[in-house]
Amino acid sequence: MQFHLNGFEPGDPDIADLEQRRDTATASSPLPREVDVLIVGCGPAGLTLAAQLSAFPDIRTCIVEQKSGRLLRGQADGIACRTMEMFHAFGFGERVLREAYWVNETTFWKPDDRQPGTIMRSGRVQDTEDGLSEFPHVILNQARVHDFYLDIMLKSPARLEPHYARRLLDLTIDPASPVPVTARLERLDQPQAGQTETVKARYVVGCDGARSTVRRSIGRALHGDSANQAWGVMDVLALTDFPDIRRKAVIKSADGGSIVLIPREGGYLVRIYVELDDLAENERIANRAITIDSLVAAAQQVFKPYTFEVKDVAWWSVYEIGQRLCDKFDDVPDQHVGERDPCVFIAGDACHTHSPKAGQGMNVSMQDAFNLGWKLASVLRKQSPARLLHSYSAERRAIAKELVDFDREWAGILSGASKAATDGQGGGIDPAEVQRYFVQHGRYTAGTVTRYAPSVLTGEPAHQHLAGGFVVGTRFHSAPVIRLADAKPVHLGHVVKADGRWRLIAFAGSGDPTAPNSAIGAFCAFLAEAQASPVRRYTPAGEDIDTVIDVRVVLQQRHSELALESLPAFLLPQKGRFGLRDYEKVFCADLESGDDIFDMRGIDRERGCLIVVRPDQYVAHVLPLDADADLAAFFDGVMLRQA
Amino acid sequence: MQFHLNGFEPGDPDIADLEQRRDTATASSPLPREVDVLIVGCGPAGLTLAAQLSAFPDIRTCIVEQKSGRLLRGQADGIACRTMEMFHAFGFGERVLREAYWVNETTFWKPDDRQPGTIMRSGRVQDTEDGLSEFPHVILNQARVHDFYLDIMLKSPARLEPHYARRLLDLTIDPASPVPVTARLERLDQPQAGQTETVKARYVVGCDGARSTVRRSIGRALHGDSANQAWGVMDVLALTDFPDIRRKAVIKSADGGSIVLIPREGGYLVRIYVELDDLAENERIANRAITIDSLVAAAQQVFKPYTFEVKDVAWWSVYEIGQRLCDKFDDVPDQHVGERDPCVFIAGDACHTHSPKAGQGMNVSMQDAFNLGWKLASVLRKQSPARLLHSYSAERRAIAKELVDFDREWAGILSGASKAATDGQGGGIDPAEVQRYFVQHGRYTAGTVTRYAPSVLTGEPAHQHLAGGFVVGTRFHSAPVIRLADAKPVHLGHVVKADGRWRLIAFAGSGDPTAPNSAIGAFCAFLAEAQASPVRRYTPAGEDIDTVIDVRVVLQQRHSELALESLPAFLLPQKGRFGLRDYEKVFCADLESGDDIFDMRGIDRERGCLIVVRPDQYVAHVLPLDADADLAAFFDGVMLRQA
Ligand SMILES: Cc1cc2nc3c(=O)[nH]c(=O)nc-3n(C[C@H](O)[C@H](O)[C@H](O)COP(=O)(O)OP(=O)(O)OC[C@H]3O[C@@H](n4cnc5c(N)ncnc54)[C@H](O)[C@@H]3O)c2cc1C
Ligand SMILES: Cc1cc2nc3c(=O)[nH]c(=O)nc-3n(C[C@H](O)[C@H](O)[C@H](O)COP(=O)(O)OP(=O)(O)OC[C@H]3O[C@@H](n4cnc5c(N)ncnc54)[C@H](O)[C@@H]3O)c2cc1C
Repeated sequence: MQFHLNGFEPGDPDIADLEQRRDTATASSPLPREVDVLIVGCGPAGLTLAAQLSAFPDIRTCIVEQKSGRLLRGQADGIACRTMEMFHAFGFGERVLREAYWVNETTFWKPDDRQPGTIMRSGRVQDTEDGLSEFPHVILNQARVHDFYLDIMLKSPARLEPHYARRLLDLTIDPASPVPVTARLERLDQPQAGQTETVKARYVVGCDGARSTVRRSIGRALHGDSANQAWGVMDVLALTDFPDIRRKAVIKSADGGSIVLIPREGGYLVRIYVELDDLAENERIANRAITIDSLVAAAQQVFKPYTFEVKDVAWWSVYEIGQRLCDKFDDVPDQHVGERDPCVFIAGDACHTHSPKAGQGMNVSMQDAFNLGWKLASVLRKQSPARLLHSYSAERRAIAKELVDFDREWAGILSGASKAATDGQGGGIDPAEVQRYFVQHGRYTAGTVTRYAPSVLTGEPAHQHLAGGFVVGTRFHSAPVIRLADAKPVHLGHVVKADGRWRLIAFAGSGDPTAPNSAIGAFCAFLAEAQASPVRRYTPAGEDIDTVIDVRVVLQQRHSELALESLPAFLLPQKGRFGLRDYEKVFCADLESGDDIFDMRGIDRERGCLIVVRPDQYVAHVLPLDADADLAAFFDGVMLRQA
Repeated sequence: MQFHLNGFEPGDPDIADLEQRRDTATASSPLPREVDVLIVGCGPAGLTLAAQLSAFPDIRTCIVEQKSGRLLRGQADGIACRTMEMFHAFGFGERVLREAYWVNETTFWKPDDRQPGTIMRSGRVQDTEDGLSEFPHVILNQARVHDFYLDIMLKSPARLEPHYARRLLDLTIDPASPVPVTARLERLDQPQAGQTETVKARYVVGCDGARSTVRRSIGRALHGDSANQAWGVMDVLALTDFPDIRRKAVIKSADGGSIVLIPREGGYLVRIYVELDDLAENERIANRAITIDSLVAAAQQVFKPYTFEVKDVAWWSVYEIGQRLCDKFDDVPDQHVGERDPCVFIAGDACHTHSPKAGQGMNVSMQDAFNLGWKLASVLRKQSPARLLHSYSAERRAIAKELVDFDREWAGILSGASKAATDGQGGGIDPAEVQRYFVQHGRYTAGTVTRYAPSVLTGEPAHQHLAGGFVVGTRFHSAPVIRLADAKPVHLGHVVKADGRWRLIAFAGSGDPTAPNSAIGAFCAFLAEAQASPVRRYTPAGEDIDTVIDVRVVLQQRHSELALESLPAFLLPQKGRFGLRDYEKVFCADLESGDDIFDMRGIDRERGCLIVVRPDQYVAHVLPLDADADLAAFFDGVMLRQA
C-alpha cells in the first residue's frame, strides 16, 4: 500500500476523506461507580489489556485516558515478530501486515576513510533470521496499533470504549474490602472540567506511562540511571539521494553524529532518530530548546555526501529516557507475598523505561499486558486462585530487567562506536562490531527470546527432549500443518487466540493413531473420562468441553491417509446450542510442502509428546503423552476445580 | 475463524453484538437529478461497478436497489481464484481469505454396489491445480462480498452509498442529448412509497438480475432453453456422520438423487444443493409447493447410510434457472455500431443465466462489471474515446457464451451420470467421468481461462514467444518478486490495483540493466522523452507521471547485486505535492526462494519483453522492449492524446 504522498494523515489509509480519518469522537458517558478492572492509560499496554478483557462480557472493565481522544501520530513504531504473533491472536495481524512497512534488511554506514566527512555503506544484513517466526518484523505508527485495538474492543462482547479526558488523581486501597481500590479521577473536558469522579475497582492496572500516578499511589519508583539519554526523533517526508532510504539503516558519521533511519508505512514516510548529548542528572531536554530545524540540520550533517531535504514533518519530538526499572510490578511488598494477593498492578513504561534504540518499548509493554490480562480474567471468572496474580510481577520483572540490561549494552556499543569514530581511528572496527551485535541479538529484538523461569506456571523442562523446538517457558513457535477435516494448510500456532483458554497440543507418536490402543487414544480417553482429567475438572458444568482447555492433536501421517471419523469422538466434540461437531481439532504434518512440523520442532517421532500452551501463547510444559498424573498436578497448581 | 455455532448470523463475524451485525441502515436521501452513471441493482455486478467508479471523485455515480437494505443471507457463495485476484485489487482480498472457507479438495461419491441404497466415496481430488493462482478457491456468503464492497465504496473518494428501496420503472433514451438517458424510479419505502423520481444519466448500467428492467427497456431478451432447471438450495447447521462434511462433495445416489455439498465459512455451516426435476416450459417452481422439509428429506435420502440431521436453517431457496443469453449487452444494434456509441449496458444475470453447478454466476457477473467499469471511467475522464465502450459487449458476450455452453455440458454430464446410476448399471463408469471432467475444467471454473480475442484492446500474439506464461488476452498471472528498494518479497500482480490505470511491465533482458546502452535504459528513455511515448501522450499536463500509465520493471539479477540509484531516473519518479520519489517501480526475480519469475512465466532471458496490462488485469499485449512504434500504435487505438 502506498499513502502519505501528499503529507502525513492520521487514521485508516483506506478512508479517502481526511476529515473522517482524523475523527476523534470521544466517549463522554459518565464513569461507572464500580468495576472489576480499572485500566489507567490508553497506551499500548492499556489497550492490549482492555482488548483482552473485552473478550469477556462477564467482566466489568473500564479504561480511562487523560488525553481528549485517540492518539493520531508519533511515539513508537517498531513491531517485533513476537508482537505480530500476538496481534494475530487478537485478530488483526492481517491488517497490520497489509499496512505496515516490512523490515527486510538493515544496512550499516560508517565514515568513509577515503572521503573525509562523508559516509559509506559498511554492511547489509537480513533483518530477521529465517524461520524465527511466521511473521515479519514490521513498522507502523503506534497510533494505528491503537486504532486496531480500539476497533476490536468496540466489536467485542463487552463493547468497550475508553473514557477520555479523565486524569487519575490517586488511589486508596482497603485490603479488607471485596472491592478494595478506590480511584479518584478528574475530568478534563468541558463543561465538566475539574469535576472529580470516584470509581471503586477490584483491580486497578496502571498503564499510565513513565510518570505513572498508579505507581506513585502504591509507593513504588523507577530506579536506575539518574541521567537521561536524549534522542531527537522525526517522522518526515523527505527528498534524498541516500540509497538506503527504504531500508533500515544505522549510520555513524565521522564527526560523531549518529542516526537510526527507519522507513515507514505507505512508501514515503521515514523516521529518523538523531542521537543528542546525554543529559545531566535531572536535566530536562526541554530546557535545551531544541528545534525541528536543528534536528534536520543534524541529520543533514550525518547524511553527507547525500542530500536530505525535508518536505513535510508529520511528527517530531525530543525523546528523553533513562534505563530505569521498578523493583516490583504490583502493590504487595515482597515480605507480604504469602499473606495477601495483589490488587494494583503497573505495566509498560510505568515499570520500565529504556532507549528507543532496541525498539522494544511498545512491544514489551504490550507483552506485559498480555501476560496480566488472562490471569486477571481467569481469577475474576473463578477459574484460577487469586494467588496466580503474583506471577505477573515475578515473570515480567525478570524480563524487564533483561531488557534494561540489553538496552544499556546496546546503547553503550552504539555510542562507543561513535566515539571510536571521532578519535581518529576512522571507525574501521566498531561499525563491524555494531553489526555483529545486531545479528547476534536479532532474536532478542524479535521478542522471541523471552523465557519464563520454572514456577507454578512453567514446568521443569524434564521432558524437553521430546520436543526440542518447543522450549518450556518460551512462546509456542508455530509451524505449518494441514487441517485433517478440510485439508486446509494452516499455521498450528494460529489456533491460539487471545481468548483466555489453555491449549493442550498433542503430537502423536509412531503407529496408527486410530488403533484402539494408540497413545493418542489413551490420551483422549484420559481427558474424556478420568476423574483427574483437567478438562473435566476445570470446565464448568454445562459449558462446551473446550471452554477452558482446548485440545488439539497433530498426526504424523499424510492427511489423505487418515479418516477423521476413526479418531476418538473426543476429537470431534459436540458444542453449542445445537450440539454441532467441531471439526477443527485435528491436524497432520504438512507432507505436501515438505515442512514437517515433527522435524521442524524436533518432536520425538516414536513417543510423541504433549505441549501445554498458556493463554498468552507461552509453552507451560512439555510432557510425555501418558503423563496423566503430571498433567493433572500441573493444572491443579494454577486452576480451581469446578463444582 | 469459527463462527455460526449457535445459529447463522448475518454480518461481520468479528462483531459480537448480533443486533449491530444485522444493521441495515439505508441511505434515504433523495436521488440526484443528474449523474454520469446510474447503476441499477446492488448485486455482485452492480457493487463491483460502483466500487470501481467510486475510486474517481470526478465521476458522479448513483446506485439504486429495490430491496430496502443490504443483503443479509443467501444467494451465491463460490469465489473463484480469478475473483480473489480482483478482490485483492479492490483491497479486500485479505479480509475474504480470513473469513472464507477454502476449497482444498473435492470428493466424489457414488452408489455403493455392495450395499444397495447407500453411497461410497469414489474419488478425491485437489480442488485447484498448483500454481494456477496465488489465491485459493474460497466460499463465502454473497452477502459478505456485498459488505466488503459497500465498505470500500463508503471509504472511497466518492463516498458512495446505495439508494435502497428504489425500483427502476423504465428508461428513455434521447441519443441527441449529451445526457441521453432518463430513468424513472419508484420509491418503495414509507412514507414516500409510490412516489416517482427521475434521474438523467450519461450512462445507465442494468445490473438488475435475471428479470432485468433495463434489458427490457432497451428491447433485449434472454434466449436459450425455454425450460428451467430447478435446484433446492439450503444453508444449514447439521449434525451428521458423513465423513466429507468439511470437504466439497459431489454425490450421486443409487435412486438418482444428486447433491452438491459445499462447506461454508465459520467451520459449521454447510450448503447443500439438491437437484430437483426439470421444469416444463414456462412452469414456475413456486407452483410445486416445495418445502424446506421436503428438501431436507431428499438430502437425507441421498446421504444414506449417513445421518444428516438439520438443526438450523440459515437460508433456503428453490433456485430455478435456464441457460440463457442475451444477444448483445448494450443498447446499440449490431448494424449501428459504426454510427453511435452505447449509453445503456447490462451486466451479470441481466445478460446471462446458468445453473449454479459451475459456481460461476457471481464470479462472471463481477468480471462483467470489472470489464466495463474502467472503460466507463476512461471515457468519462476523457482518457479514451467513447467508441471504446463497444468493446464491453463484444468481449463479455463471447465469455458468457462460453460459460453457458460449458454449463450446459457440465449439467448434462451430471444428470447423465445420475441417469446411468438409476438404470441398473450401478454408476460404475459415470462418476469417474464426472471426476475427469471436473479436473479437466478446473481452470475454467477457477476463472483463469477467460481470453479476449484480438481487438483494439488486445494485441495480436505475434511476440507471445517472449513470455509464454503471460498469454495475450488472459489475465496477468502473478508471480513472486523482490522489490528492489526495500527487499520486500511481493507478488508482482499485486501492483495492479483497481484504480483504472494501465501498466507497462518491462522484463529486462540479459546484461547489466544499469549500463547506459541497456535495453531497459533505452526503453525508459523512450517513455521519458520521445514524442511518441504513451506516457507523455496520455498523461494530462500537471499530473503525476504514473497517473494514467504505471511503468514497472523486473530485473533478472539478485536484488542485493543491484543499486536502484544506478537505474534511469524515470524509475524513481517524483510525485505529488512535494515531488517525493516513488521507490516501488523496480523489482528483481526472487532468487532467494527459487521462484524465478523469468522461469515461471517463460520470459526470454536474452531479449526480455514488455507486458501491457489493462486496468482490469488482462494482458493486452506482449512486445519486444524496443517495439516503440508498436507500443505507440497500440495505445493510439484506445486512448486520447492529452493537450
Ligand atoms: C512522547 C513520546 C514519544 C515516544 N517516542 C518513542 C519513539 O520514538 N520510539 C519508541 O520506541 N518509543 C517511543 N516512545 C515510547 C513508547 O511509546 C512507549 O514505550 C510505549 O508507548 C509504552 O506504552 P505504555 O502503554 O506503557 O505507555 P504510554 O504509551 O506512555 O501510555 C500511557 C498513557 O497513559 C496516559 N496517562 C498517564 N498518566 C495518566 C493519568 N494520571 N490519568 C489518565 N491517563 C494517564 C497517558 O496520556 C498515555 O496515553 C515514546 C513515548 C512518548 C510518550
Ligand atoms: C434468490 C436467488 C438465489 C440464488 N442462489 C444462488 C445459488 O444458490 N448459487 C449461485 O451460484 N447463484 C445463486 N444465485 C445467482 C447469483 O446470486 C447471481 O448469479 C449473482 O448474484 C448475479 O449477480 P447480479 O449482480 O448480476 O444480479 P443479482 O444478484 O440478481 O442482483 C440484481 C439486483 O438488482 C435488483 N433489482 C432488480 N430489478 C430492479 C429494479 N427494477 N430496480 C431496482 N433494483 C432492481 C435486485 O433486487 C438485485 O438486488 C441466486 C440468485 C437469486 C436471486
